[in-house]
Amino acid sequence: ISSKLPAVGTNIFSKMSALAAEKGAINLSQGFPDFKPDERLLTRASNALLEGNNQYSPMTGLPVLRDAIASLIARHYGRQVDSAEEVTVTSGASEAIFDAITALIQPGDEVVLFDPAYDLYEPAITLAGGVCQRMTLTAPDFRPDWQAFASLLTENTRLVIINTPHNPTGSCWTEDDLASLWQAIKSQDIYVLSDEVYEFIHFGEQAVSVHKHPELRARSFVVSSFGKSFHLTGWKVGYVVAPTELTAELRKLHQYVTFCTATPLQQALAEHLQEIPESSAELAMFYQRKRDVLRNALANSRFTLLPCDGTYFQLLDYSAVSDLDDVAFCEWLIDEVGVAAIPVSVFYQQAPQDQRLIRLCFAKEEHTLLEAAQKLSRL
Amino acid sequence: ISSKLPAVGTNIFSKMSALAAEKGAINLSQGFPDFKPDERLLTRASNALLEGNNQYSPMTGLPVLRDAIASLIARHYGRQVDSAEEVTVTSGASEAIFDAITALIQPGDEVVLFDPAYDLYEPAITLAGGVCQRMTLTAPDFRPDWQAFASLLTENTRLVIINTPHNPTGSCWTEDDLASLWQAIKSQDIYVLSDEVYEFIHFGEQAVSVHKHPELRARSFVVSSFGKSFHLTGWKVGYVVAPTELTAELRKLHQYVTFCTATPLQQALAEHLQEIPESSAELAMFYQRKRDVLRNALANSRFTLLPCDGTYFQLLDYSAVSDLDDVAFCEWLIDEVGVAAIPVSVFYQQAPQDQRLIRLCFAKEEHTLLEAAQKLSRL
Ligand SMILES: CSCCC(=O)C(=O)O
Ligand SMILES: CSCCC(=O)C(=O)O
Repeated sequence: ISSKLPAVGTNIFSKMSALAAEKGAINLSQGFPDFKPDERLLTRASNALLEGNNQYSPMTGLPVLRDAIASLIARHYGRQVDSAEEVTVTSGASEAIFDAITALIQPGDEVVLFDPAYDLYEPAITLAGGVCQRMTLTAPDFRPDWQAFASLLTENTRLVIINTPHNPTGSCWTEDDLASLWQAIKSQDIYVLSDEVYEFIHFGEQAVSVHKHPELRARSFVVSSFGKSFHLTGWKVGYVVAPTELTAELRKLHQYVTFCTATPLQQALAEHLQEIPESSAELAMFYQRKRDVLRNALANSRFTLLPCDGTYFQLLDYSAVSDLDDVAFCEWLIDEVGVAAIPVSVFYQQAPQDQRLIRLCFAKEEHTLLEAAQKLSRL
Repeated sequence: ISSKLPAVGTNIFSKMSALAAEKGAINLSQGFPDFKPDERLLTRASNALLEGNNQYSPMTGLPVLRDAIASLIARHYGRQVDSAEEVTVTSGASEAIFDAITALIQPGDEVVLFDPAYDLYEPAITLAGGVCQRMTLTAPDFRPDWQAFASLLTENTRLVIINTPHNPTGSCWTEDDLASLWQAIKSQDIYVLSDEVYEFIHFGEQAVSVHKHPELRARSFVVSSFGKSFHLTGWKVGYVVAPTELTAELRKLHQYVTFCTATPLQQALAEHLQEIPESSAELAMFYQRKRDVLRNALANSRFTLLPCDGTYFQLLDYSAVSDLDDVAFCEWLIDEVGVAAIPVSVFYQQAPQDQRLIRLCFAKEEHTLLEAAQKLSRL
């Protein structure tokens, strides 16, 4: 059969995790914690399974979870959202992103991406017949040039996909960036998909968010994920907040893509969100400590540490270590050093020639980070 | 924004369940059990959560679950499948169906559906730019006319979607049907999506299955769902079996639509499948008893019971009760009788003029069924 996605193979995360397992390397490639989530949350999930409801939730998500999400957003961002009309629970942020793109993009529509871009945006755009326009951001700061951005917009531009805190670079945008984005798009009929799955993992002031921008948010899908905020990437519960009209179109997709998301896990998350004390500052501190453990342990290595202001990813420049391209270098690292990382060039359509970067995930126990850093420091 | 699915609204299941809850009617509309799944399975899931892995599973599903699915298929159908290359775990059968259609259908491709057809096939076809060709089946037997089917095929026909045991009618196909299907399509490049989510809920001999047809299965996606077989529609764990080449294309979608499915629930299902004694005959008997309770309780009513050979749905002809169309009749039933059902015309593009049918779900406690039947028998 003729492939509709001929360029797509097994993605880099699956590939590297499989290689790491095969070769027994320390896996700092795919982004997931190697420690357990909060026991209280697991207990709630266990109770929800044993005593609760194991049948379909409403298609839009359990009302109690949608309400808890609305409260979370009100607390953090001072934004009032209508939990019935503007919040949809999805099977991970992935599904939310797929649904949003598929609901919006028509053949010929142009979508602006900022490279390096997470690998999941483009296939959905391609399937919908859209065309990607890419803004290339470069190390060490990955700052967008808003004039270059404005010159990329055409009358066919329909959507801009943004992601801050940013995977894979760990860079974060500022209020000024969102203001510039708004200035550039406001006079046209352009929507925004804001991938904010690392919203609570940022190491400066509060991360900027489309939730705090009344004008932007009126045209945006804002996506987040409990997997990232509660250390359970395997639960696959995410959500998307969007104005009523956009939500209505997104739900047409969601209704037929997965219909709904595991009910007992939704129930547990709803109870947990209602009962836990404010914990997002704690989460940032928790990961800041891990970041610093990793950075300190690599300080005397031949790798150059790039800035990391958010997410659980640290970029390393390995120019002083090897001349290999980053994919070959990552394979070599697994084989010869016993550490699995992610090459950064795969997130670019056209990676800058002289950039030699790998990504390490620091959502790991400190001893794992120290062990990996020790191996890397021997180079 | 201009809708890509202008014809789609909130689907009939969500609508009827919401109405039933609002009006306090007995809900025999949306298909889900009102009783608990096997306690041992819930305990396994609880253990998997508390002690197990709450992070991403491999994109294709946990190997232990894929192996268990391959064993299940070997036991039931004598078919050997390669669990690594031919089995993919999805977030419900819905996602499997969406992924298969989206991976395969290109603009202008034609897809044959048998009406009444489950509501989830058409939107995926429309989004992919495909065109639906419909075979209309009619009460009481919903038998396909294979000559009419053959005359529907064109050089653009790319896919045929079949579903046996059949939702919403409860009818089942025979070996002859599958043989006729094969005869009709074999000389063309036509694929099959076989929705077999009710494979173990059938009240005669073993249900026919594409798994048992070496020729058909070499061109088919065969979809099933643990939600139906283990009474947990809210876990959203399904799977799809297809030849390597088709699986490879489907996984390109799956990788970006949800990536993977709740890991602890996959783990629990894998252990359960390994340890339970053969239980599918039990499942059929369990539902046959419920079917008979409902049928017996309605035997003296003014409704005509249609044959029901599989699924947990019973069709009633209400011609002797009301002149309303079936949508209006279902609304009236909720308001005036206190029973929620599903109108059958919504599963047709063009419902036969004189057909007056509603669908009742009998995946309910016997007292629920008896109470509903009593209310209906008063008419
Ligand atoms: C869905 S696997 C990829 C996990 C992740 O977000 C990452 O490693 O960047
Ligand atoms: C996904 S809600 C619909 C459940 C179902 O399969 C049915 O009622 O037919």
